[in-house]
Amino acid sequence: MNSKSKPWIFTASCPSIVGTVDVVTRYMANAKNYIDEIHSFDDRESQRFFIRVEFQPGDSDFTEATFAADFAERAAEFSMEWQLARPEHRQRVAILVSKYDHCLNDLLYRYRTGQLNIEIPVIISNHPDLKPLAEWHGIPYHHLPISNETKPEQEAEIVKLLAEYDIELVVLARYMQVLSPKMCEHLDGWAINIHHSLLPGFKGARPYHQAWEKGVKMVGATAHYVNNDLDEGPIIAQGIQTVGHAQYPEDLISKGQDVERVTLFNAVRYHIEKRVFINGHRTVVFSN
Amino acid sequence: MNSKSKPWIFTASCPSIVGTVDVVTRYMANAKNYIDEIHSFDDRESQRFFIRVEFQPGDSDFTEATFAADFAERAAEFSMEWQLARPEHRQRVAILVSKYDHCLNDLLYRYRTGQLNIEIPVIISNHPDLKPLAEWHGIPYHHLPISNETKPEQEAEIVKLLAEYDIELVVLARYMQVLSPKMCEHLDGWAINIHHSLLPGFKGARPYHQAWEKGVKMVGATAHYVNNDLDEGPIIAQGIQTVGHAQYPEDLISKGQDVERVTLFNAVRYHIEKRVFINGHRTVVFSN
Amino acid sequence: MNSKSKPWIFTASCPSIVGTVDVVTRYMANAKNYIDEIHSFDDRESQRFFIRVEFQPGDSDFTEATFAADFAERAAEFSMEWQLARPEHRQRVAILVSKYDHCLNDLLYRYRTGQLNIEIPVIISNHPDLKPLAEWHGIPYHHLPISNETKPEQEAEIVKLLAEYDIELVVLARYMQVLSPKMCEHLDGWAINIHHSLLPGFKGARPYHQAWEKGVKMVGATAHYVNNDLDEGPIIAQGIQTVGHAQYPEDLISKGQDVERVTLFNAVRYHIEKRVFINGHRTVVFSN
Amino acid sequence: MNSKSKPWIFTASCPSIVGTVDVVTRYMANAKNYIDEIHSFDDRESQRFFIRVEFQPGDSDFTEATFAADFAERAAEFSMEWQLARPEHRQRVAILVSKYDHCLNDLLYRYRTGQLNIEIPVIISNHPDLKPLAEWHGIPYHHLPISNETKPEQEAEIVKLLAEYDIELVVLARYMQVLSPKMCEHLDGWAINIHHSLLPGFKGARPYHQAWEKGVKMVGATAHYVNNDLDEGPIIAQGIQTVGHAQYPEDLISKGQDVERVTLFNAVRYHIEKRVFINGHRTVVFSN
Repeated sequence: MNSKSKPWIFTASCPSIVGTVDVVTRYMANAKNYIDEIHSFDDRESQRFFIRVEFQPGDSDFTEATFAADFAERAAEFSMEWQLARPEHRQRVAILVSKYDHCLNDLLYRYRTGQLNIEIPVIISNHPDLKPLAEWHGIPYHHLPISNETKPEQEAEIVKLLAEYDIELVVLARYMQVLSPKMCEHLDGWAINIHHSLLPGFKGARPYHQAWEKGVKMVGATAHYVNNDLDEGPIIAQGIQTVGHAQYPEDLISKGQDVERVTLFNAVRYHIEKRVFINGHRTVVFSN
Repeated sequence: MNSKSKPWIFTASCPSIVGTVDVVTRYMANAKNYIDEIHSFDDRESQRFFIRVEFQPGDSDFTEATFAADFAERAAEFSMEWQLARPEHRQRVAILVSKYDHCLNDLLYRYRTGQLNIEIPVIISNHPDLKPLAEWHGIPYHHLPISNETKPEQEAEIVKLLAEYDIELVVLARYMQVLSPKMCEHLDGWAINIHHSLLPGFKGARPYHQAWEKGVKMVGATAHYVNNDLDEGPIIAQGIQTVGHAQYPEDLISKGQDVERVTLFNAVRYHIEKRVFINGHRTVVFSN
Repeated sequence: MNSKSKPWIFTASCPSIVGTVDVVTRYMANAKNYIDEIHSFDDRESQRFFIRVEFQPGDSDFTEATFAADFAERAAEFSMEWQLARPEHRQRVAILVSKYDHCLNDLLYRYRTGQLNIEIPVIISNHPDLKPLAEWHGIPYHHLPISNETKPEQEAEIVKLLAEYDIELVVLARYMQVLSPKMCEHLDGWAINIHHSLLPGFKGARPYHQAWEKGVKMVGATAHYVNNDLDEGPIIAQGIQTVGHAQYPEDLISKGQDVERVTLFNAVRYHIEKRVFINGHRTVVFSN
Repeated sequence: MNSKSKPWIFTASCPSIVGTVDVVTRYMANAKNYIDEIHSFDDRESQRFFIRVEFQPGDSDFTEATFAADFAERAAEFSMEWQLARPEHRQRVAILVSKYDHCLNDLLYRYRTGQLNIEIPVIISNHPDLKPLAEWHGIPYHHLPISNETKPEQEAEIVKLLAEYDIELVVLARYMQVLSPKMCEHLDGWAINIHHSLLPGFKGARPYHQAWEKGVKMVGATAHYVNNDLDEGPIIAQGIQTVGHAQYPEDLISKGQDVERVTLFNAVRYHIEKRVFINGHRTVVFSN
């Protein structure tokens, strides 16, 4: 039965056909796993099925290996892509930043206080400015300067670090660099970026200035997966803040930072809790 | 597979034990019913399980009777209380009002335009004022005046009308009468009331005046099931509106009406779509 | 002193120079007018001054004519454009619609219940569908069909009607026609349109479908003045609604209608209460 | 004219009589001070007038002393209580905390990055836990343990420290102690507390547990001035967060912290920018 112990989380997706739910829940019942929460959705446009299950194992010897041994074969019949997350597993997250620290400060605060159940083994920046903040939290900080000429080498360095630190998720916490297509491809699907506008409005540079020029009454932020199309990756979360005539671009920047950090946090949390599925250019998010 | 046709909706609750999900999904799989969406939740406090399934029958001869024949026995083993809603079924809803018409007007608009997929066979009021509005929508309007002396008779009349019109849900759309304990008991669990405050704040009379006196910066509304404890039934939905020093009680009333009607609509919609479960003094709401 | 009686409203704008506030408030003091509320703002970009004053006349013989006689000369020294609104004046508003009635229904409800203190002497549409709704409210309904060929004539008819009915404000309450440049110019500054997206995102046709394709997590609406640049007039108000993966384009349309009608109402109310000033491509809104 | 330089801020209140605005604006005009923004409000219930003016002095020798010399006499005729804030003045703010650090961390972040234009010369706590956080920001941290027996002495120590550090505003950033009536009186009007509920709902201890028990769909926070009536001081700002059935009390606490810190920040910012006036049990807030 549902208890205070953290659950295992099973997630999967596959083409929509009869029996997709049953193959999962029948296995759970046979294994005497107790389901705390289940959420499934069939997208009628992409004809694709998505499921997320929180459960407590019935058997104290339950492991990923035993699960795989029992489940993989049937899952293959459904062309099911699936993942299983241990309760005690803390994803290894690398944070990339430039000079703005509002998102970094927020993520580190939630990390330090246990609100974000992750490991942050490394912070990478093209500037040295935020090193003291990283150090106060006891996290290695790699300063990798970048110029147009050195971009390929710098990005290669980042890729190397991500591998060395065994990173599962990359968070671009206002990393103010345009990634090369090669880098975008490398990060496709496992990196989250925060853009400081309600995409697709105000793409590109200086979105708050664009928003002010246009005289909008709301500014916002968009957290999305990185893919090979700049500012066009699948959206995970968005947030807004109202603004008025008495606010100038610098005020929009200041007000917007609160939205950015909360929106980025929400996206990271959804990802960490295995609530997000990429569905073509869109996402399925089983939020709570 | 998920299509544009409206789904059947299965809902159930029972004590939390292993196999509750499986008993439902296994039946669905055996019957070749296609599950569009499934949502389950186990409340660790009440140790109770709740499930809602949208599905398309695999068999074109599928009926409630065949479902019951196949499913009831196994459900009984789990002490499962369950319901099945046909796609084409429109719940029969009675609306009770006094003189304020903002909630009634809103519900009738959504009813007329198909946003609320219900039947409204009758409107009942203790005042004659809103008869023209009802008539324009072609709905019978029963004017049942009430005084302290006639309350028992008037309530008995209402009960009779609800039976005659075969009502499944009663909506108190600002029906400004304190119901008798007997009437509350009669309506327990199948009547929704809108209270014009963020309960439990500002219970009782003139909540906007109370809120203004207190100098709050937000007013709100609460839609809840009627039960035997006035203003204390299980909450289904709440909404808020910000207010400032330049707003007087009459402004709060005016601004609050927008919150009331949207909050009441949300609660009615959740109920109609079988998204709400009463869980002791609380509710489980599988919102979308 | 501030009382429950509705105030006169004075509004003005002019280039930013010293003494702009004083010229107004000194006059008010000399006339023994009691100021209930004053709000001024100097926009540092356009170097323009905006002021709005609610006041109770000190002299029971106070009229617009006496005000003008006393004030106009000094105002001219500041190149001040000013307006004075009588408490009892109800602006004459024409509503243009096509087939969608959610905005019209909302405006008529607020008109009927006194929440919008206006006159609606005429409703104009290119379709006959909403005539019964207009008639129930006792408002003349002009059906002016339109085709590409007849657009110039139809628009000329509208212009004629607006003049005949002595209209002060035109509200395009989902009037699904692209106005000709000539018509836009005619309506410049005294017509409010509701666009069903958070402009400048999703301009043009079928914005909810565009939004769904993009996978946004929020849809919205924008109320703006008509000017000679389609979908680019100065923004008065914006509103949003959150959406998720389980909502298809038709659901976005349905959810969005609630935002549209509230956003349009807010814009109309701000305008009617003389809270909005056009400031180039932007607006100043002294909201309350 | 309005420029990017920070303005002087004049604020005043007095009984509502004719001429209150004029006495201020006439002085400003005579002194050739340029008014960037003016906001006044007359409360018809308390019959009290409130005004806030942002301005740029016309004379480069402008000082508080010259202002007072010229203005005080006329202000006295109106029984006007007034204040003048220099652009470069940074209010001296003391923060009181216990063990929860989310509000402290947020305020320190905004202080460090210049978003809150204040001095924080001292942090006081009844626990030693947050000393490292204070030290990283270079702020003296006074650990003053408290017990029922030592409360009078401990509070006397706090009062002494506030005087020594020349404190203008005290922020109770989740200082989990019930202040003595004497202490409340001492802090009346110049201390801001954050309560973790939408007052007046859920007063007293463990408000998130109370909220969960009640099954509310929204939790919130209230920032208010301390006065002699616990949890009843004039409200400055409120914020909310939606919650659902899947959130337990510990989740409400976690979600609520985001509301608390933003609500407290808003209240402190309004106070610092001289936007808040106490009006009996209520406040006037000229927000932007």
